[in-house]
Amino acid sequence: MSFAPLDIARPYLLFLGDAPDALAAKTARGVAQFRPEWCVGQWRLPDCQADLGLPELDARAAAALGAKTMIVGVANAGGTLPERWHPALVAALEHGMDLASGLHARLSDLPGVADAARRLGRALHDVRHPRQDYPVGKGRLRRGKRLLTVGTDCSVGKMYTSLALEKEMRARGMKADFRATGQTGILIAGRGVSVDAVVADFMSGAIEAITPDNEPHHWDVVEGQGSLFHASYAGVSLALLHGAAPDALVLCHEPQRRHMRGLPHYALPGLKECADANLAAARLTNRDVRLVGAALNTSNLDPAERAAALAEAEGELGVPATDPMITGVSRIVDGLE
Amino acid sequence: MSFAPLDIARPYLLFLGDAPDALAAKTARGVAQFRPEWCVGQWRLPDCQADLGLPELDARAAAALGAKTMIVGVANAGGTLPERWHPALVAALEHGMDLASGLHARLSDLPGVADAARRLGRALHDVRHPRQDYPVGKGRLRRGKRLLTVGTDCSVGKMYTSLALEKEMRARGMKADFRATGQTGILIAGRGVSVDAVVADFMSGAIEAITPDNEPHHWDVVEGQGSLFHASYAGVSLALLHGAAPDALVLCHEPQRRHMRGLPHYALPGLKECADANLAAARLTNRDVRLVGAALNTSNLDPAERAAALAEAEGELGVPATDPMITGVSRIVDGLE
Repeated sequence: MSFAPLDIARPYLLFLGDAPDALAAKTARGVAQFRPEWCVGQWRLPDCQADLGLPELDARAAAALGAKTMIVGVANAGGTLPERWHPALVAALEHGMDLASGLHARLSDLPGVADAARRLGRALHDVRHPRQDYPVGKGRLRRGKRLLTVGTDCSVGKMYTSLALEKEMRARGMKADFRATGQTGILIAGRGVSVDAVVADFMSGAIEAITPDNEPHHWDVVEGQGSLFHASYAGVSLALLHGAAPDALVLCHEPQRRHMRGLPHYALPGLKECADANLAAARLTNRDVRLVGAALNTSNLDPAERAAALAEAEGELGVPATDPMITGVSRIVDGLE
Repeated sequence: MSFAPLDIARPYLLFLGDAPDALAAKTARGVAQFRPEWCVGQWRLPDCQADLGLPELDARAAAALGAKTMIVGVANAGGTLPERWHPALVAALEHGMDLASGLHARLSDLPGVADAARRLGRALHDVRHPRQDYPVGKGRLRRGKRLLTVGTDCSVGKMYTSLALEKEMRARGMKADFRATGQTGILIAGRGVSVDAVVADFMSGAIEAITPDNEPHHWDVVEGQGSLFHASYAGVSLALLHGAAPDALVLCHEPQRRHMRGLPHYALPGLKECADANLAAARLTNRDVRLVGAALNTSNLDPAERAAALAEAEGELGVPATDPMITGVSRIVDGLE
């Protein structure tokens, strides 16, 4: 256990391994999309079917360009670290880089990798497994502003929406920082906490720790997790809501989702019902919280269906509804300036 | 990590150490009060100021009477295991007993104790630190009935109320089992899960695991934790609510509590507001949930004040309100038969 906050050294080399398709490298894609200035290149093993269009580098070439950390940006079913990747992991360490992974398997559990890191004095960041100690949440309002993305379900675009909001706010000259609460977000931000992996007593305290006092007009854009309506994870979502003490909520939703993820016997909540429940719960730690927008993932809808879905959400919620991937988030940010 | 559920061998020897007063031995007192048939005796070191009125035994005498586990039933300010207790701990191991503790400090972190346990093949149960793996919650209704105690705040009598309900139900011939979710409750029940100490993702799954399918008329009486209105711990309370999928809630409250425990800037919720929020959240996993009673800790009120507080709670909530310590819980159980 350590009290030092997680902070991944930059810039990065993105390791794509032997990804069988583009989807397998979606973690690396997220880093390259939202932090292009941190990515010196990609390292693809033979047979890799993913390509981010970055310079092709191995450990030696990336180190020569100043890379400080190699990010394991590829996932397989099971979240393992297969042996065929190990020589590349050790090579990165030998060329002076740290390693970071968001997989379930731990870098620190691989004897050859752990031994090399110890011998060479390099850090291994298993970001899904927090090693920091966090205090118990205090429910104290901090200076500065906070926005939290919440959802009708898991995996409806909360991380993407949060990053899109940060990007739009920064483009307008607003002070904003994405605050990561899950493993992919942490690799993108270089810091954060995997809130669903901390010990239960410290969930809200961990979120308070990553959203401390800030300048009056600064926005923390906090990545939400789960849903208050998800029977498996709602406790995590509530702790996140209380710890973030948000001034603003953005409700994320996928119109074509047929049931709660992993729970075929659970229907999704209505948008208004979901927004109202989140606002009611959030008022405990910030009585001025308000809903400022809705973010719909409409990638599988045709343009007419998309327009109808967004118009329906706006009518139901009374706030701007957008698809961050397609129609952007500027109408939501308009309401925050 | 282990998949085997926690199960503490019985009967017990209660170790009171050098408790400076009766309050320091309240864990042992709870065990002796609710599981007298499991307690062969107490072991008091010189200067111990607590006394449960049990036979005075040391490790050898308790072992001769069949004791299988020595329970560390005493707490001190930092939750430590002071060195002056270690000889007694090792003696219990040497006489064939396991050890169980609900303190923050771990038995397994004491080299002399851990070595002795390994050498002698005894178990060390640090019940505040779960070593079991739990599945993710599934939100599936199980057979049998479940009652959960919820609260306006932490430490308002949820464990005591749950145990009093189990006792009353068993006295009437009803099938009932107290399900422990905190360290003292686990030592009393000999099993359970310290839900605030599990990894966040598995909170509701852990509660589902300790309240499995049962006979149709069997009641699990589940010990609640925290409060939906406590900014530090509400996520744990919500996960407990969803995992228990209760048919019945009992709302626990201390009328003289001036602010939320540990949070001087937070007022307590109203009884009706608290009951309604718990019922609304509980409906996600059991739409038939209902409030069946209120349990008030009125030990610091005089008889007239007590009667007034109970009458006011009944009027506000429309269910029987009792003080389990003073007026019993029979009126609540009447509504469950």
